[in-house]
Amino acid sequence: MEKAEIGLIGLGVMGSNLALNIAEKGNRIAVYNRTVDKTRAFYAGAGDLQKNIVPTETLSEFVAAIRPPRPIIIMIKAGDPVDQEIEKLRPYLGNGDIIIDAGNANFHDTRRRFQELEGTGLTFIGMGVSGGEEGARHGPSIMVGGTEDSYARVEKVLTSISAKYADDPCCAWLGPDGAGHFVKTIHNGIEYADMQMIAEIYGILRDGVGMSASEIAHVFSEWNNGRLNSFLIEITAKVLTATDPETGKAMPDIIVDAAGQKGTGRWSAIEAQQLAVPATVIEAAVAARCLSSMRDERKAAEPMFNKEELEFKIPPGPWLNRDLELALFAAKIAAYAQGFDVMASASEQYGWNLPMPEIARIWRAGCIIRSQFLDEITKAFSETPDVANLIVTPAFAAMVNECLPSLRRIVAAATSAGLPVPGLASALTYFDAYRQSRGTANLIQAQRDFFGAHGFDRLDGLDIHHGPWGSGAA
Amino acid sequence: MEKAEIGLIGLGVMGSNLALNIAEKGNRIAVYNRTVDKTRAFYAGAGDLQKNIVPTETLSEFVAAIRPPRPIIIMIKAGDPVDQEIEKLRPYLGNGDIIIDAGNANFHDTRRRFQELEGTGLTFIGMGVSGGEEGARHGPSIMVGGTEDSYARVEKVLTSISAKYADDPCCAWLGPDGAGHFVKTIHNGIEYADMQMIAEIYGILRDGVGMSASEIAHVFSEWNNGRLNSFLIEITAKVLTATDPETGKAMPDIIVDAAGQKGTGRWSAIEAQQLAVPATVIEAAVAARCLSSMRDERKAAEPMFNKEELEFKIPPGPWLNRDLELALFAAKIAAYAQGFDVMASASEQYGWNLPMPEIARIWRAGCIIRSQFLDEITKAFSETPDVANLIVTPAFAAMVNECLPSLRRIVAAATSAGLPVPGLASALTYFDAYRQSRGTANLIQAQRDFFGAHGFDRLDGLDIHHGPWGSGAA
Repeated sequence: MEKAEIGLIGLGVMGSNLALNIAEKGNRIAVYNRTVDKTRAFYAGAGDLQKNIVPTETLSEFVAAIRPPRPIIIMIKAGDPVDQEIEKLRPYLGNGDIIIDAGNANFHDTRRRFQELEGTGLTFIGMGVSGGEEGARHGPSIMVGGTEDSYARVEKVLTSISAKYADDPCCAWLGPDGAGHFVKTIHNGIEYADMQMIAEIYGILRDGVGMSASEIAHVFSEWNNGRLNSFLIEITAKVLTATDPETGKAMPDIIVDAAGQKGTGRWSAIEAQQLAVPATVIEAAVAARCLSSMRDERKAAEPMFNKEELEFKIPPGPWLNRDLELALFAAKIAAYAQGFDVMASASEQYGWNLPMPEIARIWRAGCIIRSQFLDEITKAFSETPDVANLIVTPAFAAMVNECLPSLRRIVAAATSAGLPVPGLASALTYFDAYRQSRGTANLIQAQRDFFGAHGFDRLDGLDIHHGPWGSGAA
Repeated sequence: MEKAEIGLIGLGVMGSNLALNIAEKGNRIAVYNRTVDKTRAFYAGAGDLQKNIVPTETLSEFVAAIRPPRPIIIMIKAGDPVDQEIEKLRPYLGNGDIIIDAGNANFHDTRRRFQELEGTGLTFIGMGVSGGEEGARHGPSIMVGGTEDSYARVEKVLTSISAKYADDPCCAWLGPDGAGHFVKTIHNGIEYADMQMIAEIYGILRDGVGMSASEIAHVFSEWNNGRLNSFLIEITAKVLTATDPETGKAMPDIIVDAAGQKGTGRWSAIEAQQLAVPATVIEAAVAARCLSSMRDERKAAEPMFNKEELEFKIPPGPWLNRDLELALFAAKIAAYAQGFDVMASASEQYGWNLPMPEIARIWRAGCIIRSQFLDEITKAFSETPDVANLIVTPAFAAMVNECLPSLRRIVAAATSAGLPVPGLASALTYFDAYRQSRGTANLIQAQRDFFGAHGFDRLDGLDIHHGPWGSGAA
């Protein structure tokens, strides 16, 4: 029997969809699942694609069905199960075989697993896959971390199944060990920020302007034809348009306002802190989800505070809509700039040499944050590869200049009206602090020297590092 | 020779000051330093206090000089050196002896060290000490984590050396293992927030109103007589008043605006993320320090962005000063509420049973964030011990109601004027989100269900968890 080009373990929703996608693109694939019934059901439901699928019922049968060096995708729950699966699999593998973790792993685990397999003849790939179930089935964005050699073995299969942006596959090798899973983590952190800021704009329209879900849907729908064009804006319009079959109400109006979070948003914020990179929009977005989950606390708090006489003072209409559009666009730039800044810093810290234009390129399609906006980021980073921050590329500086006044007006109007805009406000203060050549941390340095003798530098460069603070100072 | 009541290893600035403080309060103390010369110099300089100090030159001599069970304070650089010191010390110790780490340890390390000594007959105390060099010498705030028994052995010495707030010693046992170091970490996180928000107000007065350092000093000095009365406000006035002997300029005007950070601010933010507690003001403060350090980037960025025609529209004078005072006070409440919320969550996570009123009580004096404000927090938590958040205690809800309109006006005016106020803005959006019974995360839940089939809950409680999204949805 002809050997399979690749193997896949774990036929949950994501694994099944990925396997079908691989088979559909003409790649022969061997599949295995701990529960044999699941493998049988999967194969039975594969229809025409059965011809490219080799269902197997034991690990030894599974491994034997794949052409060496064998690339084996593991698509199971992240964490300990992955280590257990690797242990079970190892005795069956041979020199050059490649274990590919396609789950949402923490990149620290991926680095450890990569190192644990070094020198064993086996190699490890940490592969970030974004696009949800639909993406896995019809074309995800694929972020690969591992050795360049191991990527060469799987490149053909992976590029065949990935999403395409104008025929360009959204799949790339990004660097060694944890590079792929790290980039996927930051993708998700940016996704949190994108979604939070959209929710804030929705809140302004709902609570500040008093618009109905379908009226708001119309606004987002129009924006999807402009510079905000993206998957998230598109589906925002769709979910706002959907009607609950039970009550006839707009769907968002019957959904509880408490959003859970998975690990990746939080990991983005934690890594940003570890790397000392300001990622305040992402942090604000994660915190907003935490606060949303504290729904009982919020409900108990509301009546304890005065109803201030507040109103959202920008009148509704095309001018407001335009201002909101530009505000959201400016804030989006801040979120992406922060995410890319975290990646630049991690790249240095972990010696990954991450290719920024390439990352933006493979996010243009397939993943949740896909948009033509990412094409502009690709261009900006290609033109100025060593730039310190996305917002100081000429193209993006121009966009910020155009849109920042809108963000400023919207944040001022929303905060004046008591509408919570933590993401938008963080974006605005990020711009204002980033472009301020003379900040206010000189005062903090004076305080720290006063109480802790921490020392400071002088603007005139004199070699004097402590102040004449007098009594009570350290 | 009379045995010492306690021992101390590490005669750096903090260790020396702590040892002198202990001796001065009538406690006999044995001291040891790796470098013998340092021990001799310390003893030679101890003057009258020599009578209570036993200088020792070997670990065996040092340990023999202390009354068993021996409490031994280690005050050295945090991290590996502490583990090494414990290893060196252990062979000399006997049943019941207590190793006390008084450095700025990460509480995870403290938990590990505590567990490593369990069952060995030795016990471990992680002791947070705040107040800088001055505090160590004349009365710090002391946060103790360890067994209650081991605390009983050192309570007398520690309360004798701690700061006093109206005769009440600012020292307490807070819980097992890492409790003390964790509380110290959050103290520092709050300190970052306090300092950042003061710097933002300073920035408004300097750049928005155009006041000189000495004019601004006058404003802070007045505030120190009111509800903002605190060590940090007091020293802000002092550093703004100080004059550079080299140039005759106000000190803050000659200091570089780049503030470093030590681990504790960052750890606060990371633990808040780990615990899923919104601590946005602390996060914003840490991020602001990171951004301040990127001074070259900021200087390069400024000319790339349009000089918008912006002005700070609240006219200077007593009314503005009053508004700023209340705004800063409201924002301060948010920062403390977040810090205490992180501690409440950690207490549950790690089984510490942290006593909130006690924590506020021992922060009233000695530490960097000391203030009469903490006396009000002590009262609020004593009166309503199981409250979900500081801001919904009756006393603090009333303060928020009084001050929130000022915070709102100041944030709107500052953001409109292009003045970066990340801390103040985070505080405002925290209040506005916390008291909003119906938030906007329903939209996020709809989006997540659309692309990832994550599911949602319905307001009407029906057992239907997915939406009728139609084509393209997961």
